[in-house]
Amino acid sequence: MSKYFIGIDLGGTNVEVGLLDESGNVTGRDSFVSEVDSGPESMADRMAQSCRKVIEAADVDHSLVKGLCIGSPGPLSVTEGKIIKAANLPLFTNFRLRGEVSGRVDIPATFENDANVACWGEFWMGAGKDVSHMVMFTLGTGIGGGIIAGGELIRGCNDNGAELGHLIVVPDGRLCGCGQKGCIEAYASANNTAVRAQEAVAQNSASSLANIMRQNGVLSCKDVFDEAAGGDQTALEVVDYTTKIIAIACVNMNHATEPQIAVMAGGMIKAGDFLLDKVRRHFNDLMWNLKGETTEILLAELGADAAVIGAAGLAMHSYENGTLYPPGQ
Amino acid sequence: MSKYFIGIDLGGTNVEVGLLDESGNVTGRDSFVSEVDSGPESMADRMAQSCRKVIEAADVDHSLVKGLCIGSPGPLSVTEGKIIKAANLPLFTNFRLRGEVSGRVDIPATFENDANVACWGEFWMGAGKDVSHMVMFTLGTGIGGGIIAGGELIRGCNDNGAELGHLIVVPDGRLCGCGQKGCIEAYASANNTAVRAQEAVAQNSASSLANIMRQNGVLSCKDVFDEAAGGDQTALEVVDYTTKIIAIACVNMNHATEPQIAVMAGGMIKAGDFLLDKVRRHFNDLMWNLKGETTEILLAELGADAAVIGAAGLAMHSYENGTLYPPGQ
Repeated sequence: MSKYFIGIDLGGTNVEVGLLDESGNVTGRDSFVSEVDSGPESMADRMAQSCRKVIEAADVDHSLVKGLCIGSPGPLSVTEGKIIKAANLPLFTNFRLRGEVSGRVDIPATFENDANVACWGEFWMGAGKDVSHMVMFTLGTGIGGGIIAGGELIRGCNDNGAELGHLIVVPDGRLCGCGQKGCIEAYASANNTAVRAQEAVAQNSASSLANIMRQNGVLSCKDVFDEAAGGDQTALEVVDYTTKIIAIACVNMNHATEPQIAVMAGGMIKAGDFLLDKVRRHFNDLMWNLKGETTEILLAELGADAAVIGAAGLAMHSYENGTLYPPGQ
Repeated sequence: MSKYFIGIDLGGTNVEVGLLDESGNVTGRDSFVSEVDSGPESMADRMAQSCRKVIEAADVDHSLVKGLCIGSPGPLSVTEGKIIKAANLPLFTNFRLRGEVSGRVDIPATFENDANVACWGEFWMGAGKDVSHMVMFTLGTGIGGGIIAGGELIRGCNDNGAELGHLIVVPDGRLCGCGQKGCIEAYASANNTAVRAQEAVAQNSASSLANIMRQNGVLSCKDVFDEAAGGDQTALEVVDYTTKIIAIACVNMNHATEPQIAVMAGGMIKAGDFLLDKVRRHFNDLMWNLKGETTEILLAELGADAAVIGAAGLAMHSYENGTLYPPGQ
């Protein structure tokens, strides 16, 4: 009889909950509005309620649910199962969410940052399911990262590793939201790609982006990719540099943990092969060819489900490793 | 009764051999001239002879020697125990050195690249002996690297990871010997620090480096650090940028594998605290301070012995993990 695992993805807007069997089939699914202002106790109650709901709806015996994992914004402490400080969850600081939820449902549990659970999702059931070494870049508002080496997450000494958006690739470069200068996020996130396009339009009013700017008062990253795909020169230059910076990050990770694949995820990959082809071309231009086979660059396959799937998968992996925490801890 | 392990460091000039007990005490030591032109069969013979010599001299029972490890220039295959291609060892290509040596002495063995064994040496008995996450930068002619996460070497999918000299930190920057542009090695290796100083002197003949250049026809990295320590402005600027680039590499590894310590090794660390202080100051300036504790930057402690000690330590670690290859394989 299959064992089951629950993945919970704590987002600022919604909480997604999934019940998966050990083959990765989603046998139950629930979702509720986060309402983070009602506080962490309420969140623990509603997460527990949602867990019971998916177990009941799937008609699975409670004793077969062997573990759960909560994926959460960080920084957080995996050991203590709590958020240390997350921008959108001020009330949750130092609240031991893992123990509060696992105690309520009486299921052993683990706790992991959201970028890592999404990476694990792609590793378990998506673009990485045939490899044991990968990195993932989540290209959204900011840039998140995940690293898997030899089939294990690389968390770092304080669970703050794999912050791949903050690799510095331009000395004294653009100021990043993190306070550093020249981070890849400062150039290549969706937000900063749009900002760089606005700056470029200010220099070149003949760009088709200038019309959009006049109509909407602002540019989105999607606008930039759409106009680049349509052949606008200014948009193409902005996209070209975004993809070059991403490619440098891929080169650097090849020389660090040497993954078989680098997976592109997040909102920016709606641009699909138009994005992928450019990142690959830059990577091939930038990367040495001293040592034959190198990192392959791929698009993520699971979309927004990666986090729920990955959280359930990490619960299973932790169960198998004996690293789940007992209910209530 | 203690178990014993042999570490062999295959260098282009000398081969160093050490017999260590499981506490890391060096109980036997030998060294011979590499004479790589006499070919790999001769090398295997002489390595085996040297192993027998250190075991006999230490009066250790052969059955207590549980493993050996050869540290070798790469790229190499850990699985097959052979060099794939090394610049200074053309005759050794595809020769299964591990099996040839281990068969001759009837001791299980492993094979590892030289930067990784040196990193493991510092991890086991040197600057890293109290941590489980570290990186090492070997600042010499080129720049080598090593990564340890959770007490294990990160080798990458094809044993070509941790090439930390080839992180790109300047888009379209200086051409590196590896064919990439803007690698940290292209700026911050001992060789390239000297080259950059020569370029700077060509612009500024008032520098004290100009006198040395006139006398010797060339500058060494040591000259640059000596004159910087003496207050020469041009030399100071060159050293400042070298240490800034090294600090960027430390920031980047903090955001990748988040080591507790980043260890500086290689010939450049003869400059001691003068080097260390500058790297630390740049690191503190460059690095975000979002998340409290961060990577500490330290000097290596074992000097040239790191490789022999690390090779023996890796033999022990592989013995404990059950990953040594039987004699002859």
